[in-house]
Amino acid sequence: MESKALSPITIVLVEPAGALNVGSIARVMANMGLDRLVLVNPQCDYLGDEARKMAVHARAILENARCVPTLTDAVVGCQRIVATTARDRTLPTHLEHPREVLPWLLGVSSALVFGREDRGLSNEELNVAQRFVRIPSSSVYPSLNLAQSVAVCAYELYNAAGVAPTVPPTAEPEAPAEALEAYYGDLERLLLDIGYLYPHTARARMEKFRRLYNRVHPSETEIAMLRGILRQVEWALDRKN
Amino acid sequence: MESKALSPITIVLVEPAGALNVGSIARVMANMGLDRLVLVNPQCDYLGDEARKMAVHARAILENARCVPTLTDAVVGCQRIVATTARDRTLPTHLEHPREVLPWLLGVSSALVFGREDRGLSNEELNVAQRFVRIPSSSVYPSLNLAQSVAVCAYELYNAAGVAPTVPPTAEPEAPAEALEAYYGDLERLLLDIGYLYPHTARARMEKFRRLYNRVHPSETEIAMLRGILRQVEWALDRKN
Repeated sequence: MESKALSPITIVLVEPAGALNVGSIARVMANMGLDRLVLVNPQCDYLGDEARKMAVHARAILENARCVPTLTDAVVGCQRIVATTARDRTLPTHLEHPREVLPWLLGVSSALVFGREDRGLSNEELNVAQRFVRIPSSSVYPSLNLAQSVAVCAYELYNAAGVAPTVPPTAEPEAPAEALEAYYGDLERLLLDIGYLYPHTARARMEKFRRLYNRVHPSETEIAMLRGILRQVEWALDRKN
Repeated sequence: MESKALSPITIVLVEPAGALNVGSIARVMANMGLDRLVLVNPQCDYLGDEARKMAVHARAILENARCVPTLTDAVVGCQRIVATTARDRTLPTHLEHPREVLPWLLGVSSALVFGREDRGLSNEELNVAQRFVRIPSSSVYPSLNLAQSVAVCAYELYNAAGVAPTVPPTAEPEAPAEALEAYYGDLERLLLDIGYLYPHTARARMEKFRRLYNRVHPSETEIAMLRGILRQVEWALDRKN
């Protein structure tokens, strides 16, 4: 497993009707280090060709999925339960952002519950949960596809678990200030020589180049490359003299 | 529109092969307040029944999708381009977390580019982008489904548009992609002419320059200045012939 914080989390799908959805969900669960799937009274062939095709390398999650008759059965043994809802129902508690509520599921026996593609969860089912998540979305078309909802939540769980690899530093060392200065010197001489710069405008113009190159933090290799061009231009000019 | 910061962002799919994927992507784009879709040489019937079924209430996005032959055509007029990659390639620049890089696309003409389901983007295609995003995922099964990748990125864009203050405009407008391309073309011709590049090494060498300049996001004035130098060098060489 990727992270011990993710392993006790169960994804619960209540009466999923789309085999493609269930297959996609298995895949994204595997992508995000989750492997416990429980299906409440599934309405599709979640072990059939369509589901397996979408699961690709995550078929084991489908094969190991547990099937139960009701949501209450699905959450036996879970300490923390979050339900997803797209609707601003007359819920007793407020709907929270994924980033706010999902980290609460990490590291304990917990369940994240998703409703039916068309009708979501009933009020009775929502009452099984302690907290509620709503994925922010456009008021013009707020309703996400089930598999997309699971993807977003799984991604947030994975981020929160902190297993995301830290951003690797750039491979190459930045050029030291003196190498940059030497380049600016070479460039200025060449530009004066070819008549792009005039002595009285050189300083102001060169400042613009400095700003451009200082912004990019060139590596030593890159400065060597830029200076190589200048030498080659000089050589081409000399040859033609 | 939901947010003015989202409206100038284009989602670009390079050679998508799954109609179901393209349909799902249209839906999640609508869910997240995005509406510009460009398909580069699509390999599926993105207006057929499968795609329309998955798009549900977002069919207008499919119908208004623009089809173009190459990625370069897709990003004409875009100031900022981010490419997605799953691979820890030997990229010079680092792969960034969605939350880190995607807010940079808000509020300006920009493109978020996704590769083929099976092979992603070629190195040449990756070179069109200035920054690179990698969705964190399990090392056991890192490869996300295309539509799921778009969902995660669209969700992050939507979050960022709602929370993050709009990007402060840089003093000067950034040069559009085609101005950078024109500069690279001029530079390559000159460097071949003076013998700095050889035809068989030109591509690899030019990639290093692209990386350097793509990192700095030159303004229109700066690109004009860089092209001015090239013209002056050419003039100096001609004069001495």
